[in-house]
Amino acid sequence: MKELFGNAVVGQSGGPTAAINATLAGVVRGVVENKGKNIAKLYGMRNGIEGFLQENLIDLSAFFANSEEKLRILEQTPAAALGSCRLKLPKPQDDPGFFERLITIFKKYNIRFFFYIGGNDSMDTVAKLTAYLETCDYEMKAIGIPKTIDNDLLGSDHTPGYGSAAKYIATTMQEILRDCAVYRIPAVTIVELMGRDAGWLTAASAVGRLAGGLEPDYIYLPECVFDLDKFLIDVKKALAKHPNVVIAVSEGVRFANGRYVGEGSQSGATDKFGHAYLAGVGKVLEYAVRDSIGCKVRSLELSLPQRCAAHLASDTDLSESAGVGKAAVSAACNGISGEVMSIVRSPEETYSVQFEHHPASAIANGVRRVNPEFCVPEGNQVTDSFCRWLLPLIQGERNLVYQNGLPAHLTF
Amino acid sequence: MKELFGNAVVGQSGGPTAAINATLAGVVRGVVENKGKNIAKLYGMRNGIEGFLQENLIDLSAFFANSEEKLRILEQTPAAALGSCRLKLPKPQDDPGFFERLITIFKKYNIRFFFYIGGNDSMDTVAKLTAYLETCDYEMKAIGIPKTIDNDLLGSDHTPGYGSAAKYIATTMQEILRDCAVYRIPAVTIVELMGRDAGWLTAASAVGRLAGGLEPDYIYLPECVFDLDKFLIDVKKALAKHPNVVIAVSEGVRFANGRYVGEGSQSGATDKFGHAYLAGVGKVLEYAVRDSIGCKVRSLELSLPQRCAAHLASDTDLSESAGVGKAAVSAACNGISGEVMSIVRSPEETYSVQFEHHPASAIANGVRRVNPEFCVPEGNQVTDSFCRWLLPLIQGERNLVYQNGLPAHLTF
Repeated sequence: MKELFGNAVVGQSGGPTAAINATLAGVVRGVVENKGKNIAKLYGMRNGIEGFLQENLIDLSAFFANSEEKLRILEQTPAAALGSCRLKLPKPQDDPGFFERLITIFKKYNIRFFFYIGGNDSMDTVAKLTAYLETCDYEMKAIGIPKTIDNDLLGSDHTPGYGSAAKYIATTMQEILRDCAVYRIPAVTIVELMGRDAGWLTAASAVGRLAGGLEPDYIYLPECVFDLDKFLIDVKKALAKHPNVVIAVSEGVRFANGRYVGEGSQSGATDKFGHAYLAGVGKVLEYAVRDSIGCKVRSLELSLPQRCAAHLASDTDLSESAGVGKAAVSAACNGISGEVMSIVRSPEETYSVQFEHHPASAIANGVRRVNPEFCVPEGNQVTDSFCRWLLPLIQGERNLVYQNGLPAHLTF
Repeated sequence: MKELFGNAVVGQSGGPTAAINATLAGVVRGVVENKGKNIAKLYGMRNGIEGFLQENLIDLSAFFANSEEKLRILEQTPAAALGSCRLKLPKPQDDPGFFERLITIFKKYNIRFFFYIGGNDSMDTVAKLTAYLETCDYEMKAIGIPKTIDNDLLGSDHTPGYGSAAKYIATTMQEILRDCAVYRIPAVTIVELMGRDAGWLTAASAVGRLAGGLEPDYIYLPECVFDLDKFLIDVKKALAKHPNVVIAVSEGVRFANGRYVGEGSQSGATDKFGHAYLAGVGKVLEYAVRDSIGCKVRSLELSLPQRCAAHLASDTDLSESAGVGKAAVSAACNGISGEVMSIVRSPEETYSVQFEHHPASAIANGVRRVNPEFCVPEGNQVTDSFCRWLLPLIQGERNLVYQNGLPAHLTF
């Protein structure tokens, strides 16, 4: 069998994470290790497939030639350094012209290897491109490399990017818990965390339990039905024990009828111009506590830093994120295509992982929720088994390169 | 003159910072260096003067005896490790019984040196205690040691705790700016920062300008009158230049009539139960942009982590915060009393500071605002001179002790 030879292209897509650039660095390193056997040159597409359609490409092989320092800074840069997009591809049968345009550009740049780093939609891009490639005479290997802080992709023990987000949330929650503990006045602090469909991020706020630290009194995940009366009973119970009650709640918790808890305020509250206030679940619970219990209460959201706080990235996550990028190059050069990379944890007691791959069509568009055994039966806390599962993923810190007091970031 | 000899007590008061425990460690080190010449034993009061009144004391000399490791972990622990309180003391003439009770406890524990680490109210405590001590026959030296992330205390070039909060804000703003830059769709992101009366914290978001990084398009401080029409013109101008517009705004910005911009929503919006929504300035500006410009817009608050993100503390700030604690012990042992410590910057080009002290009565209850020359005439950005002033304060990172993936914290 004649081995495939040509150029490669890599793109980033979907929401930023603290580790998506470590995966990009891994792809660069994988191409370097291939030593020109299959891949002559690596292009980067700016703003994902959207930029690719405009031939907005950068020669990454030239940019990173002999520069370990640049790769190191790329790995500690948050958000997609190549830029991102949110373009859902049409089905090949619905718009073959779209795919013909892609193939024309692949041919023009002799691109034979396609790497796409992203979430569910990006894996869908790989699946559709693969389906189209099977119908035409252009040979190209396409591999999807997952990234998502949400950890909700099928087929992986965990996703690249999740460990860093979890480390940020766990550390910040420790600091908030210390902050809340200084006064003796009864007070409730509600921390709203990301996670529309899965509670992996919110659950991470418990891990201080196994790291000599503190943990929130209660944790509410989208996987467990939320009951406002039970919640208020929980808060009263905690206040009876100590004055500083801290609650972690996923933005995506829902009532038994399937409605988001955050929806209450969205439909009910308006400002003087008649705008609906999109307050979120934290504010809804804050007002419920004020109304029913009457103690001091506040709510806060950890917001964007959950997905971009690269200064606190987990070294384990960055290393695995780079590793999965490198493994993708190796897989493609070995003839694999139409697959999505995954991280599989060894069943041994000592933590280790392997990189595998599964058909993109089986991965895209599914949602992986928190395992039922990771939630307590009352639905208001996570179990020790979850904390033990999470702990290896937040281990290690990068020795960051600083520039004038701020972490250095790389831009193309 | 016979030198004063006895025990010392230290307390923490007011809101937490990332550096208030470094100052506590500095006081401990100062007492160790005194080698029993003036101070036999150092007590810590739990929950400030409130706990002291209940004789809730801990023997810090015993706790930290020969334990450099414990002091090191104390220095990286956020929030007041001894606990805090928000007790405003009565005037001595209004309630002499209150002060007699304090003196009784001072006598019981033979306390001759009193150190109080806190903000404005704590300096007021030192001023009132000093005034009372002058009217009675109990000799005790009382020193106030400032801490506030707000940097709004008179008499100092900057306050202990500000440098770490500024480093957190500057770093997080860099990460948010990278996050916002990944898409090409026009979008406005409004970041609300702490600072009710002074804009020092918000101004810190600009410093990336001098550190090879990015900066928000506009920065609005309480020191400059806020005009909603001008703000919307600013946003439109920025959108004409690039798609990703980022705004930093102090919670305390006001209109020309003196009303807080955040007040608009507080008085206008209610939920279905009639509760007023306390939305804050970020939400008010978000709705204004949506209403007038109609592009994608979101607002977020950096919230509590601004004052407790010890994992990202500035080494310069921690060192100075410890230094000012140690200097306070030295000053008290040299007979100084009724004074508040301050940080004075050398006029030399190379950054260095000295620790001085000023009468507590002159410091308490004043507010130090951002120097007018640090704001541009248009009132929507800070100057390079501000960034140059700030830069030394955010330099350096601690080599943190981690425990199972999370920064170690000390508890008593």
